Amino acid sequence: MSIIVMKFGGTSVADTERIQRAASKVAREVALGNQVAVIVSAMSGVTNKLVAYCDEISPKYDKREYDAVVSSGENITAGLMAMALQELEIDARSWQGWQVPILCSEAHGKARIEDIDASKMLRHLGRGQVAVLAGFQGVTERERIATLGRGGSDTTAVALAAALGADRCDIYTDVDGVYTTDPRIAKAARKINKISYEEMLELASLGAKVLQTRSVEMAYKRDIPIQVLSSFDEAIGSDLPGTLVTREEDIMEKHVVNGVAYAKDAAKITLFNIPDTPGIAAEVFGPLTDAEVNVDMIVQNVSEDGKVTDITFTVPENELEAALQSLNANEKLKGAEIRSNADVVKISVVGIGMVSHAGVAQTMFRTLADKSINIQVIATSEIKISVIIDKEYLELAVRALHTAYGLDAYN
Amino acid sequence: MSIIVMKFGGTSVADTERIQRAASKVAREVALGNQVAVIVSAMSGVTNKLVAYCDEISPKYDKREYDAVVSSGENITAGLMAMALQELEIDARSWQGWQVPILCSEAHGKARIEDIDASKMLRHLGRGQVAVLAGFQGVTERERIATLGRGGSDTTAVALAAALGADRCDIYTDVDGVYTTDPRIAKAARKINKISYEEMLELASLGAKVLQTRSVEMAYKRDIPIQVLSSFDEAIGSDLPGTLVTREEDIMEKHVVNGVAYAKDAAKITLFNIPDTPGIAAEVFGPLTDAEVNVDMIVQNVSEDGKVTDITFTVPENELEAALQSLNANEKLKGAEIRSNADVVKISVVGIGMVSHAGVAQTMFRTLADKSINIQVIATSEIKISVIIDKEYLELAVRALHTAYGLDAYN
Repeated sequence: MSIIVMKFGGTSVADTERIQRAASKVAREVALGNQVAVIVSAMSGVTNKLVAYCDEISPKYDKREYDAVVSSGENITAGLMAMALQELEIDARSWQGWQVPILCSEAHGKARIEDIDASKMLRHLGRGQVAVLAGFQGVTERERIATLGRGGSDTTAVALAAALGADRCDIYTDVDGVYTTDPRIAKAARKINKISYEEMLELASLGAKVLQTRSVEMAYKRDIPIQVLSSFDEAIGSDLPGTLVTREEDIMEKHVVNGVAYAKDAAKITLFNIPDTPGIAAEVFGPLTDAEVNVDMIVQNVSEDGKVTDITFTVPENELEAALQSLNANEKLKGAEIRSNADVVKISVVGIGMVSHAGVAQTMFRTLADKSINIQVIATSEIKISVIIDKEYLELAVRALHTAYGLDAYN
Repeated sequence: MSIIVMKFGGTSVADTERIQRAASKVAREVALGNQVAVIVSAMSGVTNKLVAYCDEISPKYDKREYDAVVSSGENITAGLMAMALQELEIDARSWQGWQVPILCSEAHGKARIEDIDASKMLRHLGRGQVAVLAGFQGVTERERIATLGRGGSDTTAVALAAALGADRCDIYTDVDGVYTTDPRIAKAARKINKISYEEMLELASLGAKVLQTRSVEMAYKRDIPIQVLSSFDEAIGSDLPGTLVTREEDIMEKHVVNGVAYAKDAAKITLFNIPDTPGIAAEVFGPLTDAEVNVDMIVQNVSEDGKVTDITFTVPENELEAALQSLNANEKLKGAEIRSNADVVKISVVGIGMVSHAGVAQTMFRTLADKSINIQVIATSEIKISVIIDKEYLELAVRALHTAYGLDAYN
């Protein structure tokens, strides 16, 4: 007998009819003799509405109260899903974060799961009862409700799978798997059957919206295979029709490049003529961290004269203003020239095969050059190459790279 | 310094703007130096929507899951109210039932509050923090959420007032007090300034919708003065503009009759020719109780021959079918004739002055006779007289009785 965790996102539980359809998928896993824990998101639209209420009441709202309000969305779905399962003659009950309990950090609005005491839930599962857990939430030591941030239900699912010692974590969503790139941009995009945690982690953090980054990170650490599936297909997890995110060793055929990802909401900042002294990077990025700006790619080149240098980095577009404020207020940057550009996009190619193949970067540079696309910034890691280019070339670049790396479905 | 409990009903927190208006009333009580606990209902319409979801999913839903779903409505308002207070520079936090905790019985959907451990909340109030409690809910010993049934937020307010040792419990609603009768039926209806717990209890259980019966019962037992106020007036509780529900001794001027109430949803059942033997009433009403039918007025007359008798009683209209099923299945009623009528209404006059005044019933009978209204059933208690009449005479009877007992505003 296996323990299976099944997670349904907002569009998969958008109304009562879809909740019933999701329940029938759970019923099939139960019929196969599995012990099943279900994680649900809020019905789509509900969280946005609750967030809008908070914004109307107070622009500078207390995040603890925000959490108390928005966590209600998942609680509603959890109760409804338990009812829908009971209607199918399946023993089921709902669980809210505090009932498990799922212990979270005090970072309200973006809390981290610190511990899950799964003993009580395991007893219920052992009696053949399906557990339906409200995703995206937990409880702090002070007994306040905390949420994990948008998309946090994926993280709840993987964390619960780890705590239960689950055999598989199935994420049901509105797409039928992970694609080599965004099918809305490149029609030739292919569904990936198996992908490694490392690649998925890069793809998720580079803009692929299928799985939340932290959930992949946690699955990687705890070695929980994730199956990404469409909740609108007839197949269920046991039929393995989606994308399996698993260990590199479990993937036979390794592509050099497995996906092309993009992040539209990037903005680029360049600091010219800053002193080339030890510790200057800390002086620049310390205050940015304090201002809660998430700095992404950082490029600093060797300086010509050893006195002044330039640093370029990217930030999310909606944090650009806060970043510029912080930089302009920075005493250490008095003589520097600060330039920014929000009309840029980050494009990345990802693949574990890269490590053992030469010329992967060259293919990227050559392909973009052939299309007369100027590369503004380059950053590489062991399994990815990212570039910053003008936003207007986004679609052209994605399609060209998808073809160049042999990812097209029918080539 | 006083401890004040303020409760806001669904229409008083119907949208974010009204929540802010309610918050400003709380702010004024705080400015007067009071420690304040606020109880909120769900935003109007929210509970109905959540109940509709439950009905869509499963007609025979699990009440524990129903409670998990519908309690979310109050949780949302509690968080938003705390934010609105903070926006007015008032220290405030929301509380859900389990966080207090408010311990409830296991009768999900209509649980009773068994105990409130107010020690933690009192510490927060003592620090000058306003407590905003989600009404209508609590937690069972098994750590499941239970709701108190519709209108239960009034009960939460009074129970919390008792647990906190509050000086006053203000119920803000969409009317500005308790009226001598329904102003929609009798334009001459007057607002009552002070009314005794006993009278209010009768009025509430007889159909006056201002306060929930159980909340009055609890206020009576624990001697908590309730002030019923309009949330749309400028006045706050300290200005005493509404209706004060208090002890009989605190009311100087005692009216013979203080109000005329009606219940539209009554249905009448008469059992003819049932055996006039000891225990027959138990044989009739035992199975009705098992069928969860709430029997109201019961009238049994002395039988002529001592062998057979007739019993008439009323039930809520929506329980008539269940009642008839139970009666038809009752072996002991084999020879009886069962007749029912849903086109009836119960009209009651209530007043503590009745005890010491003769002729109060006679005024009622005379008034109805003058309008040619036939009285089908009569039942009396120390402070009320109820009659069952044809539904079509409802408005006529209410207005005539209101005038006859000298209750009209400008007579």
